Amino acid sequence: MITINENYMKLKAGYLFPEVGRRVAHFQAAHADARMIRLGIGDVTLPLPAAVIAAFHQAVDDMSRSETFHGYGPSRGHDFLLEAIVEHDFQGRGIDLSCEEVFVSDGAKCDNGNILDIFGVENRVVITDPAYPVYVDTNVMAGRTGEADENGCYEGMVYLPCRAENHFNPEPPEVEVDLIYLCFPNNPTGAVASKDYLSRWVEFAQERRALIFFDAAYEAYIRDPDLPRSIYEIPGAKEVAIEFRSFSKTAGFTGTRCAYTVVPKELKAYTADGAAVEVNALWYRRQTTKFNGVSYPVQRAAAALYSDEGKEQVRRNIEYYLENARIIREGLTVIGYTVYGGVHSPYIWLKTPEGLSSWEFFDKLLEEAHVVGTPGAGFGPAGEGYLRISAFGDRKDIETAVERIGKQLKVISDK
Amino acid sequence: MITINENYMKLKAGYLFPEVGRRVAHFQAAHADARMIRLGIGDVTLPLPAAVIAAFHQAVDDMSRSETFHGYGPSRGHDFLLEAIVEHDFQGRGIDLSCEEVFVSDGAKCDNGNILDIFGVENRVVITDPAYPVYVDTNVMAGRTGEADENGCYEGMVYLPCRAENHFNPEPPEVEVDLIYLCFPNNPTGAVASKDYLSRWVEFAQERRALIFFDAAYEAYIRDPDLPRSIYEIPGAKEVAIEFRSFSKTAGFTGTRCAYTVVPKELKAYTADGAAVEVNALWYRRQTTKFNGVSYPVQRAAAALYSDEGKEQVRRNIEYYLENARIIREGLTVIGYTVYGGVHSPYIWLKTPEGLSSWEFFDKLLEEAHVVGTPGAGFGPAGEGYLRISAFGDRKDIETAVERIGKQLKVISDK
Repeated sequence: MITINENYMKLKAGYLFPEVGRRVAHFQAAHADARMIRLGIGDVTLPLPAAVIAAFHQAVDDMSRSETFHGYGPSRGHDFLLEAIVEHDFQGRGIDLSCEEVFVSDGAKCDNGNILDIFGVENRVVITDPAYPVYVDTNVMAGRTGEADENGCYEGMVYLPCRAENHFNPEPPEVEVDLIYLCFPNNPTGAVASKDYLSRWVEFAQERRALIFFDAAYEAYIRDPDLPRSIYEIPGAKEVAIEFRSFSKTAGFTGTRCAYTVVPKELKAYTADGAAVEVNALWYRRQTTKFNGVSYPVQRAAAALYSDEGKEQVRRNIEYYLENARIIREGLTVIGYTVYGGVHSPYIWLKTPEGLSSWEFFDKLLEEAHVVGTPGAGFGPAGEGYLRISAFGDRKDIETAVERIGKQLKVISDK
Repeated sequence: MITINENYMKLKAGYLFPEVGRRVAHFQAAHADARMIRLGIGDVTLPLPAAVIAAFHQAVDDMSRSETFHGYGPSRGHDFLLEAIVEHDFQGRGIDLSCEEVFVSDGAKCDNGNILDIFGVENRVVITDPAYPVYVDTNVMAGRTGEADENGCYEGMVYLPCRAENHFNPEPPEVEVDLIYLCFPNNPTGAVASKDYLSRWVEFAQERRALIFFDAAYEAYIRDPDLPRSIYEIPGAKEVAIEFRSFSKTAGFTGTRCAYTVVPKELKAYTADGAAVEVNALWYRRQTTKFNGVSYPVQRAAAALYSDEGKEQVRRNIEYYLENARIIREGLTVIGYTVYGGVHSPYIWLKTPEGLSSWEFFDKLLEEAHVVGTPGAGFGPAGEGYLRISAFGDRKDIETAVERIGKQLKVISDK
């Protein structure tokens, strides 16, 4: 009799975004004329940069002729892309990496989930709460937790609440943990991390021989030159951290699919009896066995982001979204909302007014302003009482949304 | 202390193809002027069909404008592709499937590996031997086996030897098994399966509530209209089988990356206490959590294969490779080799002459004819004494390879 992986039965009701989609569809069905503005899911709206389009077309043409056709590619990625990544994303920031430490993939979400394959089920996981739901769900699927309690917290997983009081950056815990999730600029809170703060985590991991999963999917939004963009800017981090990067939010690749993961050669994990194993070799074995590389034209398109023209076009796109974030942040502050994030981040983390729960305020915003956000509680128990607003929308939509909220849902007038 | 998944330590030395690559590079380094002909790895050589190129370009242009830009796509795949798959690959063969039963992905290799996530570790696996190494390695990684013995057989896995005596199609075993791997047309032996033969497996699976992974990556090579192209042509198969399909070998997508997996709604797996769970829902949960869909332009490119023009271009490419297979098959038979496969398959399964082992003959072929095959032993213990030759090469190379083998490695003259 074929049996299932019963850990799947522990998962709480569907992934967050399908539930948001369900409520929006339900409302839209009853109000066909309402023009919805979707600032919920973190999907980009600007088209691919011109330099990317040109390189993409050329690579498609390569595939049309025998002499330039590409079949199976190298499993880590093509050299032209690996070399551009190493040079522009790391060496330019004083970080020495080799191409053998970079693995190109079709998405940071995939890598986040798949990388758990190579680690033991007994590792204890710590997440900052709220967090990207994938961190939690993939560990539940892998059997690293027990059942969820009434707050949605899984037994055996360590949750570090991110609150205004700790500037949404909790300190390392007192308990023993093995696998640490950090995401900066943070999704969903928009918080950023200083070098000092990250250094405390690196030191913590070194002391415990723990491993940090550092999700840097939003690093391109950092504008302060003193803030670290990569965890490898912290001394010793190469011995304890894997970094996830993505072209999705940088260059609008959410529908084009390309990302990469850095696994330094210095990074070790251990057998139960303490023997050190190179994590890079394990991940290489996993990827050569269960993955076959990213589409050649997509890799060419991604490499074009590192040309002078590509860099400038990406910079302009990021500026556009950051200006959106400013409009939301300032517009909501003026009418009495308390908001966080949205400075070095495309996400605004809004405190719900009048003690409303996340889902209550989500519904109110949907029904009264026809604006879709993402309920903070969907990212974890400490997200309760917050709502995430994404700045990835069209400028006009962003302005209209702020205007509607000001008209329908002003907070100051209630005071 | 971060621990590894120790099942990885059970894996035998690297994946087969890297070892082939190592030996070829070693020989080439010592013989810089030798012109190698690579008929080893099953990678295609013909460029993408013209209809695919045109659709690919158009979709890249879609990504250049806000109005036609695509961000995150539906996690099962875009409707335009799902609908084409259901209509042309299944309804045309009398198989009723819905779009909710098809999951588009970036590769059959990925799906083959990732689908194991949703099943229990206690399931007993049966493979036909020799087999695509991914079937075995991914189950070792998941902990469904013990250690390998001196023949490379993993403890706890059931191996069914495929030999000339059983026409390379072994009967279902007497022992209890839960997870069955079948691949037709077979990689590496090139064997095909009749409806009768597959019916016996479907019946076997039904009786035991077992599940069949049916790998149909090479179905496009079938020329006999009486041979099944899909396992769903067998009554009852939707209750017991998952089918993997790929555009890699059909349309030259090895470097473009698109495939799909069919998980019928009727298919159930069980909790330890016997409760039935819909496998489709489990796989959907897995994919929405750990995957983010295939590149939009790639999906458009794949959909173009189902246009009249696309179908005709694919047919011509397949004919080209099948003619290559005929040239190898007949050319080697004339000079005294015993060969199998290569009729409804791009693979020729060659019996090594003079009792040579697979790797001995691999080396001889490399050194004396400068032709690269794949040692049968690399596909499992019952592959010992065989070599796989791929027909995916360029026509001139194929002819030269047969000529060289005739000159250097004729078998008949030894008799």
